[in-house]
Amino acid sequence: MTGTLQQLVDRNDIEMIRGWLDSRPPHEIADELARLDAVAAGVPFRLLDKDPALAVFEELDPVDQQRILVGLRDQAFHELVEEMDPDDRARMLTEAPAKVARRVLAGLSPRERQMTAELLGYPPGSVGQTMTPEAVALPRQVTAAQALDVVRRKGAEAETVYVLPVVDPGRRLVGVVELRDLVLSAADVPVADLVDTHVFRARATDPAEEAARLMRETNTIALPVMDSEDRLVGLLTIDDAMEIIEAADTEDVARQAGTAPWPGHYMAVSVWRLARSRAPWLLLLIVASVLTVNVLQAFEATLSQVTALALFIPLLVGTGGNAGAQATTSAVRALALGELRGSDLPAVIWRESRVGLLLGALLAAVGLVVGVVVVGGEIALVIGVSLVIICAWAATVGATMPMLAKRLRIDPAVVSAPMVTTLVDATGLIIYFGVAHVVLTF
Amino acid sequence: MTGTLQQLVDRNDIEMIRGWLDSRPPHEIADELARLDAVAAGVPFRLLDKDPALAVFEELDPVDQQRILVGLRDQAFHELVEEMDPDDRARMLTEAPAKVARRVLAGLSPRERQMTAELLGYPPGSVGQTMTPEAVALPRQVTAAQALDVVRRKGAEAETVYVLPVVDPGRRLVGVVELRDLVLSAADVPVADLVDTHVFRARATDPAEEAARLMRETNTIALPVMDSEDRLVGLLTIDDAMEIIEAADTEDVARQAGTAPWPGHYMAVSVWRLARSRAPWLLLLIVASVLTVNVLQAFEATLSQVTALALFIPLLVGTGGNAGAQATTSAVRALALGELRGSDLPAVIWRESRVGLLLGALLAAVGLVVGVVVVGGEIALVIGVSLVIICAWAATVGATMPMLAKRLRIDPAVVSAPMVTTLVDATGLIIYFGVAHVVLTF
Repeated sequence: MTGTLQQLVDRNDIEMIRGWLDSRPPHEIADELARLDAVAAGVPFRLLDKDPALAVFEELDPVDQQRILVGLRDQAFHELVEEMDPDDRARMLTEAPAKVARRVLAGLSPRERQMTAELLGYPPGSVGQTMTPEAVALPRQVTAAQALDVVRRKGAEAETVYVLPVVDPGRRLVGVVELRDLVLSAADVPVADLVDTHVFRARATDPAEEAARLMRETNTIALPVMDSEDRLVGLLTIDDAMEIIEAADTEDVARQAGTAPWPGHYMAVSVWRLARSRAPWLLLLIVASVLTVNVLQAFEATLSQVTALALFIPLLVGTGGNAGAQATTSAVRALALGELRGSDLPAVIWRESRVGLLLGALLAAVGLVVGVVVVGGEIALVIGVSLVIICAWAATVGATMPMLAKRLRIDPAVVSAPMVTTLVDATGLIIYFGVAHVVLTF
Repeated sequence: MTGTLQQLVDRNDIEMIRGWLDSRPPHEIADELARLDAVAAGVPFRLLDKDPALAVFEELDPVDQQRILVGLRDQAFHELVEEMDPDDRARMLTEAPAKVARRVLAGLSPRERQMTAELLGYPPGSVGQTMTPEAVALPRQVTAAQALDVVRRKGAEAETVYVLPVVDPGRRLVGVVELRDLVLSAADVPVADLVDTHVFRARATDPAEEAARLMRETNTIALPVMDSEDRLVGLLTIDDAMEIIEAADTEDVARQAGTAPWPGHYMAVSVWRLARSRAPWLLLLIVASVLTVNVLQAFEATLSQVTALALFIPLLVGTGGNAGAQATTSAVRALALGELRGSDLPAVIWRESRVGLLLGALLAAVGLVVGVVVVGGEIALVIGVSLVIICAWAATVGATMPMLAKRLRIDPAVVSAPMVTTLVDATGLIIYFGVAHVVLTF
């Protein structure tokens, strides 16, 4: 039981690997496999029995599932993909190369292939691709006991039976009944008396993130999904909703730091891939920050007369950047959680400008003291006044930009903290030298 | 139906407010109430009938619940708090002033008061405070039909009946049965045959976030919670787990931007409170960035000889800051999701230093071109070389700091992007002038 899985695989110690696998739950095994490269991960995976192998496989991210699949022999390959839930299978296929996708679809039973093909017909990132198509629907005119019989007959295949959509003969949604209510009520109560008709629902073409956040807000464990003619086509289950929200949050967090999200596990993604996900933003930002060079060039005369001004450049632009980043991050998160809407823009500008002024006044006090000690009264005054204006400006711009992005239907998280920082750097310098010009010429 | 709820309340237009309330689901009403101040929010809330009022109340954050409660008359007050789920009530009470808490506890029925008091006995942020104590536990020796009878008798009170813990006579957990399996199996099958004994569980004193992430990883819809002697004391349900994860992520996001998390809705929190949540970090950071002033003072002679060096200060420190922030954010998120552990520190340093070198080389190409155009070859070389070193350094430091925090058992999210940026600003300047010294003296 000594050493990491990587070390056991390197030593090719089959017995120890078996011991290691036996002592761990599926999600921990999946975590470890995700850290290994494709060849190494195949070794322990092939040592798993069929059921544990499926359980581990279901816990893997789509990219990791693919890496494992590619290394399997035909029989193991087909058993795995046949047993996967249709929505998990569809998610994996959207990210797989065409060769792998064909091999998967070719080996499926007709029933599973049809369900997968339907899910793949929905747009990427939509509810349709993430829902389970195997909902147990109830007719309206049955009793609780009859409904339980339907669940017993059809429930074994379904991903969930806790929320049961009630439909009319045209498969249009009447409402939902919870399994709990069927079990708790008397046998002869009509389902029509138990059905909750004020239910939330999603269209199969809606963005999955929106539907998932609605489920979280309304504490729904399975959300009925409708096609464009309002017929029931599936259910979005809570465990999938949690994964969608987690992935969306991870993406937002990455975007906020000026990184493209990458697929899979941090430790498994290659150094090249990691650099590639960060390079575009860094390049854009360094090009944008050539602006700061231009601004400083414009003030080069002032700068060479009063070199003391240069000493405070990093402090001023740094503080402005920090104040801007705080406001941006607050606004992006509030937008993601639905606390802010596009129409709140004027209110947000009014709030953040006051917050910025308050913070600026506080920091100006520090700036004044440091300024007086290091360079004397006049430049200290320049620093103090600049800090107030820069902070108010940075907080306002920082919160406004994601709100504008939202109004333009761009993902607000694309307005990253580094982007705001870089913008505030250049404008902060203009403010600084502008204030210096006014104060020093009097 | 015109105007926002705020406007209707301002006009005191009771009929319009009623119309507005009737046309919206509880979670939307709760959203709007959260945006109003306490006095204004009380007006529409008191117009709601009892059931919708409870539904709206349950959707509010604990701070907003309190604000509403304080404005209610005794009878409405007691009806509401008596109907709340014990875990929601406990969560609200931990954040309420003593006066409100006493009024709440005094009005409760003995049964509800006892349950609440027990939950309040667990540490803040623990599983115990978030679980529901009303789990329906089954004895091991019954059949499926008998188990369903137990559910029918005791299930009405419970928050969930989909996961049923199976316990021995000492209330120690044997495993769990899903309601689904009871319904789908034949009536005379013993529960002992259906029970899943390899179940995850949490201690009531465990951090709630950890338990919630475990549920998300293992697709569990209710997690058994045990006391220190391994007796069942409750269940953590998936909807509460989702809220815990969302709150934890919001906190992480705020910390990452150098902000203290604030309670409640962005639009409802006061400008003072918002400034207060941001001020401590900004103050700390501005004090830390006095370092940059010191560094520049040390190089003042060089700076006044070669003022052209000053032009590139914001570009260099800005780029370093961005590269550092990217690495920090990636590491913090990977730690939060459990992809990284403290022991990965050497591997992370090795990865990030290579990523940083790659990015630095790329950016150096841009820096060289801009440098040659603006200030000529020699300083351009200084800029290029500095960019390579600064990027490698920033990425390494940025990823290392949260890992170190984790090892020291500090929340890694406290290592904010602005903190890394500020640190990298000062060290980046030292690198820049160091390189300048070497290049320009040859």
